[in-house]
Amino acid sequence: MTAKEKLDKRTSRGLHICVGLDTDINKIPKHLLSSDDPVYQFNKGIIEATSGAAAAYKINFAFYESEGEKGMEALKRTIGLIPEDVLTIGDAKRGDIGNTSEMYAKSVFDHFGFDAITLSPYMGVDSLKPFLDYKEKLSFVLALTSNPGACDFEKLALQGGDYLFQRVISVFAQSDKTGNCGFVFGATKLDELKDNVKIFNGAPVLLPGVGAQGGSLEEVVKVFESAGHNSYIINVSRALIYADSTGQFAPVVKKTLENYNKIITEIKESV
Amino acid sequence: MTAKEKLDKRTSRGLHICVGLDTDINKIPKHLLSSDDPVYQFNKGIIEATSGAAAAYKINFAFYESEGEKGMEALKRTIGLIPEDVLTIGDAKRGDIGNTSEMYAKSVFDHFGFDAITLSPYMGVDSLKPFLDYKEKLSFVLALTSNPGACDFEKLALQGGDYLFQRVISVFAQSDKTGNCGFVFGATKLDELKDNVKIFNGAPVLLPGVGAQGGSLEEVVKVFESAGHNSYIINVSRALIYADSTGQFAPVVKKTLENYNKIITEIKESV
Repeated sequence: MTAKEKLDKRTSRGLHICVGLDTDINKIPKHLLSSDDPVYQFNKGIIEATSGAAAAYKINFAFYESEGEKGMEALKRTIGLIPEDVLTIGDAKRGDIGNTSEMYAKSVFDHFGFDAITLSPYMGVDSLKPFLDYKEKLSFVLALTSNPGACDFEKLALQGGDYLFQRVISVFAQSDKTGNCGFVFGATKLDELKDNVKIFNGAPVLLPGVGAQGGSLEEVVKVFESAGHNSYIINVSRALIYADSTGQFAPVVKKTLENYNKIITEIKESV
Repeated sequence: MTAKEKLDKRTSRGLHICVGLDTDINKIPKHLLSSDDPVYQFNKGIIEATSGAAAAYKINFAFYESEGEKGMEALKRTIGLIPEDVLTIGDAKRGDIGNTSEMYAKSVFDHFGFDAITLSPYMGVDSLKPFLDYKEKLSFVLALTSNPGACDFEKLALQGGDYLFQRVISVFAQSDKTGNCGFVFGATKLDELKDNVKIFNGAPVLLPGVGAQGGSLEEVVKVFESAGHNSYIINVSRALIYADSTGQFAPVVKKTLENYNKIITEIKESV
């Protein structure tokens, strides 16, 4: 099954929440710290509780790299826990000259076995081609991000009248002949999302920023449902995985995810 | 010694070549493949032969990540081979929202112990602040890169008349109160380098693209020397480290580096 087929299979069932495994050893329930690999044990609890109701899992490399070799080992073991038919996204934001991007693609897609990756477009189309050449995989290119600094460059107005993030979307959408290029768009940028949902032209969209960063799940869902665009996944990391800090964290996270899904279903039925 | 002091100490001696350790196991001398850790053995040969005459070492994460845990182990052991007073640059091109960038900074600066890092500016100033907050370290922000795709976005003209890469330089230069923010500028973009060398305003500049990518060492040196800007390092990776594929690779690489240094000295004396 290709990455896009995995995504479609879940979104067609009305599942749109991507579980962000930004696992920080300082934030997980304390009782796990006595185990050999607390990060892995925490992820195991989360994945077992959520894999039936999640649209995808996004694993943030930074949180594992910062723990060195032990962290990378936990990352690799974590991927092995995720059911084969659920999309896995390596949140790496890579992008470099061709021969270097080839190496990053080899790392994320071949070594770790992710289905998808997040990429930074700054260096241009050729810098991301080695990722996009993996036609069975999905590449999510940063367009407008969820942080305040998105205004510094992404929202600069170009000669020609469009914003930089709009140019990024149109350039990558035009060069995508396979349908394996998606985009990252911050859920905190609701006005821009409303104004630009049409330019995605059906491409998969990954939306971070709901939860700790303040984006509204309801409003984001309404925008996509009103536009008839079903290929979207909303990432929630901190607000979901740290919903509880006791030995009961897994069922609490499951319940939190089910509540998100219920909200989405209600909006889908009302639009 | 801070990262900037390490850099200044070498450039003040007229040393400007950064040795790029883009070590690819498929390209190193075949006789090394029988050792336990061929990548490490190759890097050891290169570093021992060049550490007296190099301005810095740039280690490209992609080439190590692509070999998984074994590669990351080789990366860490390689850093340990570089003399304490020589600048080490983690070529990672990271950049993410604040709490994630904190984790990447922890990985590159604390776990691996690099003196400097390369960063992608797309997500804005707040996305790179966690790196710049390490005041003893150096952060090289991508401005105009060496690849053809640099034209796609970096060279877009903004309303206001400047190019995106110029805006990146001015925004980060203005927000830098510590003097620990440098820039990456492609040695293949000679016309743009001539036109913009003044806007660096003395900040450290890392120039990839000489050698396999076709940039001219001589022309780049002339631009900086004519402008009286001494804080620059020119990275050479493939054309230097793979100069020879025999058991004599280390002395050949040393001789190649010394030839580069001789060219630079001659230009310095003639400008």
